[in-house]
Amino acid sequence: MFQNYTPTTRPEDGPPRLAALRDHLTEQGLDGFLVPRADAHQGEYVTPRDERLSWLTSFTGSAGFAAVLPDVAGVFVDGRYRVQVKAQVAEDYTPVDWPEVKLADWLIEAMPGGGVVGFDPWLHTPAEIAKLETALTPHQISLRPVANAVDAIWEDRPDRPDAPAKPYPEARAGRSSAEKRADIAEALHRDGAQAAVLTLPDSINWLLNIRGGDLNHLPVMQAFAIVDAGGAVQVFTDTEKLAGVALDGDVTLADWTEFGAALAGLKGPVRVDPNTAPQAVFHALEEAGIEIQKAPDPCLIPKARKTEAEIAGTSEAHLRDGAAVTRLLHWFDMEAPKGHLTEIDVAKQLETFRMQTGALKDISFDTIAGAGPNGAIVHYRVTEDTNAPVIPGQLFLIDSGAQYEDGTTDITRTLPVGDIGAEEPTCFTLVLKGMIAIHRARFPKGVAGAHLDALARAPLWATGRDYDHGTGHGVGVYLSVHEGPQRLARSGTVPLEPGMILSNEPGYYREGAFGIRIENLIHVVEAPEGADAHREMLAFETLTFAPIDRRLIDTGMLGPEERAWLNAYHAEVAAKLTPRLQDHPDTAEWLRAACAPV
Amino acid sequence: MFQNYTPTTRPEDGPPRLAALRDHLTEQGLDGFLVPRADAHQGEYVTPRDERLSWLTSFTGSAGFAAVLPDVAGVFVDGRYRVQVKAQVAEDYTPVDWPEVKLADWLIEAMPGGGVVGFDPWLHTPAEIAKLETALTPHQISLRPVANAVDAIWEDRPDRPDAPAKPYPEARAGRSSAEKRADIAEALHRDGAQAAVLTLPDSINWLLNIRGGDLNHLPVMQAFAIVDAGGAVQVFTDTEKLAGVALDGDVTLADWTEFGAALAGLKGPVRVDPNTAPQAVFHALEEAGIEIQKAPDPCLIPKARKTEAEIAGTSEAHLRDGAAVTRLLHWFDMEAPKGHLTEIDVAKQLETFRMQTGALKDISFDTIAGAGPNGAIVHYRVTEDTNAPVIPGQLFLIDSGAQYEDGTTDITRTLPVGDIGAEEPTCFTLVLKGMIAIHRARFPKGVAGAHLDALARAPLWATGRDYDHGTGHGVGVYLSVHEGPQRLARSGTVPLEPGMILSNEPGYYREGAFGIRIENLIHVVEAPEGADAHREMLAFETLTFAPIDRRLIDTGMLGPEERAWLNAYHAEVAAKLTPRLQDHPDTAEWLRAACAPV
Repeated sequence: MFQNYTPTTRPEDGPPRLAALRDHLTEQGLDGFLVPRADAHQGEYVTPRDERLSWLTSFTGSAGFAAVLPDVAGVFVDGRYRVQVKAQVAEDYTPVDWPEVKLADWLIEAMPGGGVVGFDPWLHTPAEIAKLETALTPHQISLRPVANAVDAIWEDRPDRPDAPAKPYPEARAGRSSAEKRADIAEALHRDGAQAAVLTLPDSINWLLNIRGGDLNHLPVMQAFAIVDAGGAVQVFTDTEKLAGVALDGDVTLADWTEFGAALAGLKGPVRVDPNTAPQAVFHALEEAGIEIQKAPDPCLIPKARKTEAEIAGTSEAHLRDGAAVTRLLHWFDMEAPKGHLTEIDVAKQLETFRMQTGALKDISFDTIAGAGPNGAIVHYRVTEDTNAPVIPGQLFLIDSGAQYEDGTTDITRTLPVGDIGAEEPTCFTLVLKGMIAIHRARFPKGVAGAHLDALARAPLWATGRDYDHGTGHGVGVYLSVHEGPQRLARSGTVPLEPGMILSNEPGYYREGAFGIRIENLIHVVEAPEGADAHREMLAFETLTFAPIDRRLIDTGMLGPEERAWLNAYHAEVAAKLTPRLQDHPDTAEWLRAACAPV
Repeated sequence: MFQNYTPTTRPEDGPPRLAALRDHLTEQGLDGFLVPRADAHQGEYVTPRDERLSWLTSFTGSAGFAAVLPDVAGVFVDGRYRVQVKAQVAEDYTPVDWPEVKLADWLIEAMPGGGVVGFDPWLHTPAEIAKLETALTPHQISLRPVANAVDAIWEDRPDRPDAPAKPYPEARAGRSSAEKRADIAEALHRDGAQAAVLTLPDSINWLLNIRGGDLNHLPVMQAFAIVDAGGAVQVFTDTEKLAGVALDGDVTLADWTEFGAALAGLKGPVRVDPNTAPQAVFHALEEAGIEIQKAPDPCLIPKARKTEAEIAGTSEAHLRDGAAVTRLLHWFDMEAPKGHLTEIDVAKQLETFRMQTGALKDISFDTIAGAGPNGAIVHYRVTEDTNAPVIPGQLFLIDSGAQYEDGTTDITRTLPVGDIGAEEPTCFTLVLKGMIAIHRARFPKGVAGAHLDALARAPLWATGRDYDHGTGHGVGVYLSVHEGPQRLARSGTVPLEPGMILSNEPGYYREGAFGIRIENLIHVVEAPEGADAHREMLAFETLTFAPIDRRLIDTGMLGPEERAWLNAYHAEVAAKLTPRLQDHPDTAEWLRAACAPV
């Protein structure tokens, strides 16, 4: 099993650690310290060694940060984690609604006399620090880069992982590492940069056509790298991890410890991403007098524009996964109304069906399996402590994904357990209408996710409802299930381009009652020519195929085009998945009914 | 008549002026010069003295700029002016599609050997210049602030206007100037600024509760001003213009010529808007060693949030205007099919009906009256040279507005002349669906125009169509018909707030054939409570009331909610305007039929 249901933190572990941290801060002459969830790679997944936030606070969400002051320790979490944080942290911690409450405003209020707040420059980006400093300086609060104060008191801190890396087949990537490096080199040359610093493992693994095993759920090798305008790459990591990979002569290896010296020896201008690279990298370059060119990681856009081979691979992965998910939906439909299942039973069964494909490398994130009110916890991660029974009359929300060598999946379905109330179908259908609006969208080049996000929300908005998360995130191919820069969200300002993969996952949540989310992955394609021959329009094609529960749909709320989309989708689900269910004739039969037109 | 139909420029006037400018540039050792449409106040309307772009190129659009090099003179215009520019400029000028082609890229290509390009620092913002410099510097092209090269060769350049200013009644403004100044002072104090430089006449006239007559169609007095953190204001203008206005003791007057010295004498930090204030203001402060706080003009947001008195006033102005527009629609319906009208006839008749309200102060912009293919020229301004006949079988587009002391209007209607083809109603209905989507939109706080713009476009996008302009712009109250910072467009990133007035004007244009645009003004209000009691939702209320031509609507394309909106709107139009048409019973009768349900 890739998912572990044992609680990894206990609320009571936090307070003594908080006390130790405060003692340490006093010794260091600091009035506060910032503890982000992020590691030096700004990733969503961090190694146990980098789980500073959960170690200190017991909050295990995938995003957030703490600000520890002498009298208060704020734990800042976004809308997805409002409920979860209250359950996980001890009374000594104060949950803060972020980003509604900004860290700077909170510090200003909490530190009326000013003071010095420490931060680890490897864990924060310059963009983050600069914004904070601008707001804090007029209020006599200063930020000081220091050695990590949590590390200083964390006695049994785990070691770095040392999983071996493997080559990623060029047939799957669609391009050789040499080709990718030549393109990056050309981009650097065009922008007048001599080199670029890469700090995101996704970028480095993509560029080198390798994958690794340093993290759960994200098949990458952790490293830093420097790529120069000639296409040569220096990789900084535990070099032993690459013993089994034959690298080009243009790729040289060095230990983590040599990264600082290598930075100091560069010739400028050096391109560094102020939104993803650590402040420490900027410090190192500035101290060496090297000119910095602030610009996005040059791998982001080329990586986001998937190759034909990647789209073909992930399409196959999605059909394989869709068949496994359909087996789960059928099984759930048979078992759940009997009233004996728990959330963990369902998550384990889904992992089992995926494992039975024979191709599962990992799950792409811990399955969110929420019964009834737990469905309203947007990123709920079931543990033995929270494991709720699946009760007839409630909704059940299951959001899960898989890592296969040919692709990464992410799918959410919301299911009725027996007969449910009248309001749930109304809300479900509003969510579905928004999801269909994104599926059906056509839009000209230049349009970004920020401009399309409202299409998914308008049906909910019209009734006074909304959801506190983006409509969709970028997705990798056997890489991160959350990758940028494209997003279907107000923060998604990068124009959408053919080849980009996105999730389409509107939702609706009633705290303490139920949660609804429906999610398919889609990818951007050139639309067939429209009425204006001179307009190049883009559209989305669907990657995810699995039935959407028809019993939750109030068909009277659907317009004729929405109904047509739904019926066409279900016809395609049945046509694509039935051949993959030959060994499971009962499921194939169930699928046929589940995909009947509305 | 406020509108003048005589062509103000002739293509043949351009080339000798261009030659003279090039001679002057050679003398000054410059390889090029930038000629923006903007004046030092970055306004849409400029005095005849500031009409440098049209004087030099004959292009009379309200936005654009020229870049004059020894061998090429590019005239950069946006999608609204693509057709117009080709008709207005001589062959010596090269129209450039902006912003698709960026000025920096164009200069880099046109100046392969590099060079020095001059610009007038009073006519460009630092944001603009900084962006250009970043792009040009690697290509050995530098920008040099110089005395304006067009002014140097423009022999009969007009004088500054000297129209007297008048007080704007507090009952109409809803707040006294002292209250407004106290709020601005508080905002400056909060942000740690000692003063703010105001360069936008709208802001200054709003802040002082005055109006002026320096420009056509925009009732403002031109000036610069400095407001300090104590609420005192220094105004720099021709002080004679304010002889008839009793100003508070906190407001002091000085001549234009004293502005530079006043800047140099300020105590920092001084807040200046890098997106609207001239580069020259920044130069003056920097040379005097004064700290600059770059931030938006502090009047923008308070001015955009209209008071209850302003909304009440402009609502009344819109009903008065709606009755005048309805008279025009009725008249057009009677006369146009006879085939004897021209575009100018229609524009003049509309101005006459507005004049007959007895309240018309000015039109808010030159009426866009486009018959058939001229309707596809988004900002077409009819002159005696272009005046086209109104031909049965075509569409007629009329976009116009009025300035009344209680409000500013802006309305577009597209009308059939007799029987029209089959495609026009399809396109009209797609545009109408988008317009209705905005009218009906509900959205949470924090949403900006950039996020709603796609709602208006989605029906067109679905058919491969689009329009090359924003969906809506901010509108003032007896101020500019185009005011920021709110916009319904991808560039509109400021969250919408109650009191903000916007236009809602999707369109569709077929070059050489027809143009369609439908425009109402709307304002943001708190929506009645929705399903989620804790969500504060916003919505739009309608200001503009005049019938939308039912003969152009393919009712089969409307969903039930769209049809309901249209019928409710028309019922409200009839109810509100009929009492105002008592002296015109034929028009009232016509209106009743025009507002019948579909």
